[in-house]
Amino acid sequence: MFREKIKVFDCTIRDGGLVNSHKFDHRFVREVYRALSEAGVDYMEIGYKNSKRLFSDKNFGPWKFCDDNDIRKVVDGIKSDTKISVMVDVDRVDIEDIKPRKDSPVHMIRVASYVKDIDKAIFLVNHFADKGYETTVNIMAISRALDNELNEALHQLEEESKARAIYIVDSFGALYQETTEFLIKKAKEILKTKEVGMHAHNNQQLAFGNTIEAIIHGANFVDGTVYGLGRAAGNCPLELLIGFLKNPKYDIRPILDLISKEFIPLRNKLEWGYIIPYMITGILDEHPKAAIELRNSAEKENYREFYESLAGTDLD
Amino acid sequence: MFREKIKVFDCTIRDGGLVNSHKFDHRFVREVYRALSEAGVDYMEIGYKNSKRLFSDKNFGPWKFCDDNDIRKVVDGIKSDTKISVMVDVDRVDIEDIKPRKDSPVHMIRVASYVKDIDKAIFLVNHFADKGYETTVNIMAISRALDNELNEALHQLEEESKARAIYIVDSFGALYQETTEFLIKKAKEILKTKEVGMHAHNNQQLAFGNTIEAIIHGANFVDGTVYGLGRAAGNCPLELLIGFLKNPKYDIRPILDLISKEFIPLRNKLEWGYIIPYMITGILDEHPKAAIELRNSAEKENYREFYESLAGTDLD
Repeated sequence: MFREKIKVFDCTIRDGGLVNSHKFDHRFVREVYRALSEAGVDYMEIGYKNSKRLFSDKNFGPWKFCDDNDIRKVVDGIKSDTKISVMVDVDRVDIEDIKPRKDSPVHMIRVASYVKDIDKAIFLVNHFADKGYETTVNIMAISRALDNELNEALHQLEEESKARAIYIVDSFGALYQETTEFLIKKAKEILKTKEVGMHAHNNQQLAFGNTIEAIIHGANFVDGTVYGLGRAAGNCPLELLIGFLKNPKYDIRPILDLISKEFIPLRNKLEWGYIIPYMITGILDEHPKAAIELRNSAEKENYREFYESLAGTDLD
Repeated sequence: MFREKIKVFDCTIRDGGLVNSHKFDHRFVREVYRALSEAGVDYMEIGYKNSKRLFSDKNFGPWKFCDDNDIRKVVDGIKSDTKISVMVDVDRVDIEDIKPRKDSPVHMIRVASYVKDIDKAIFLVNHFADKGYETTVNIMAISRALDNELNEALHQLEEESKARAIYIVDSFGALYQETTEFLIKKAKEILKTKEVGMHAHNNQQLAFGNTIEAIIHGANFVDGTVYGLGRAAGNCPLELLIGFLKNPKYDIRPILDLISKEFIPLRNKLEWGYIIPYMITGILDEHPKAAIELRNSAEKENYREFYESLAGTDLD
């Protein structure tokens, strides 16, 4: 697949930070940035911009807050065309913390929002756009969105927001190709002046397949993470995206090196990927939190009981 | 997806046997058969029917040969509607070894063939059909098949063979959805009196996605293996297929139990799945044998060098 408009967006450190409370050391993050830069990846999302009034920096690593100083320690001195992004959650950011774009090492701010919070997201994204940033709105938990409410949110985003791109986010790893196609086509139809993005989770080993599906139907912003690192089942593996895309500006070799040297050792310390309890939450369209709890307990391999406890909840 | 004609075909022991020279003990195979039977899986392929003149039973376990006595030790006494299949490779079988269907515990024989050997495959499959078996022809290495030769082979299979189904086999895990769609549509168009099947490998984490794609375009025989067990990157995970299909006759819970009790311990002894050298052979449309050698060497994590050695071969 070659389409020049396609942008490869890495969120290894940001989504991976959900596995280790954002405690990657600066050396590791710098190696990731170096490899992504050499590979020609368009964006690197380095963490969240959270309010220190809400979260203590005693409990979390630097990428929960993304101070400019921490970012500069990672990027300074490395030749790169890779833009830096940070993510903001609705209701968790102090907008005064965000400097004007010209005074910051950050190029893009992405606002994560449920459909119900879309008015707040539009306020934030317009505020950041006015400060000079590229912006996106990422619609979370899309597999639970009601169609009429999603339609309304997409129309508002098209008409009221300054976001460059709007993402479909399969937070639970519950989508199959047919629904991915349906959602991307809908977004493309409504969002006439914006790009559409895809952020997939890998609970059912469909993160890459659904991202290809999204590309086929016109998504131009595609998220991946190195070796699929990310909360629970993780994300679309960046190396697969780079292998698939035919744009000669991308080079898979620095990513292969990075996996050999940094991610194989990391996988011995942190757990993520295709693990049956995460598959079960994906099939059942549930948040992975119950599965994460299970994996931290003595019952971690008791799949059948876990499935029955989730699937057997009384309906009303 | 609900379509009553869809048959779930398990090949855990057959394809998994390529990882351990077919040395599964009878107890393990019996547990797999019991779980598949409880789960409502339609077929279980238990191994190969190879000539003992070509392969020594000193070097291989019982599922390289699938003697009726070994099969009976597995199936006897278990209530089941799951049919037993064995696979035959062109040029590796003694047809005199195959008894009439009524004297054997085997219900189906699948013939694996490259496009170039299709005449031999048709001879074999018709011989087995005449002995009373259900049969299929599985066209291997489909990602390397030339279009005109594949067309001719499909026409021959339609017109000259007694096979019930013809499989598209992505031996190298090289297909993306668009080519899967192209191949399945072509097969459906030519094979008017037969079913079409899909057997996918997971080098690029697309085995399940491509199998869904094949189902969407009309494939009714779909292969999977428990926890994806199979040579190199392995296969489409059976548990994902069962989770996707809506036919109420399937029950995922016995498969979850089987993975907990048998496959998690097995994965500590045998290696298969999404491992970067297998991803590399998939991207490059190569047989995994070079990657299997790499994984048995001290260079097993040197991904970049491996990629460069394969991708850098001089063209002529």
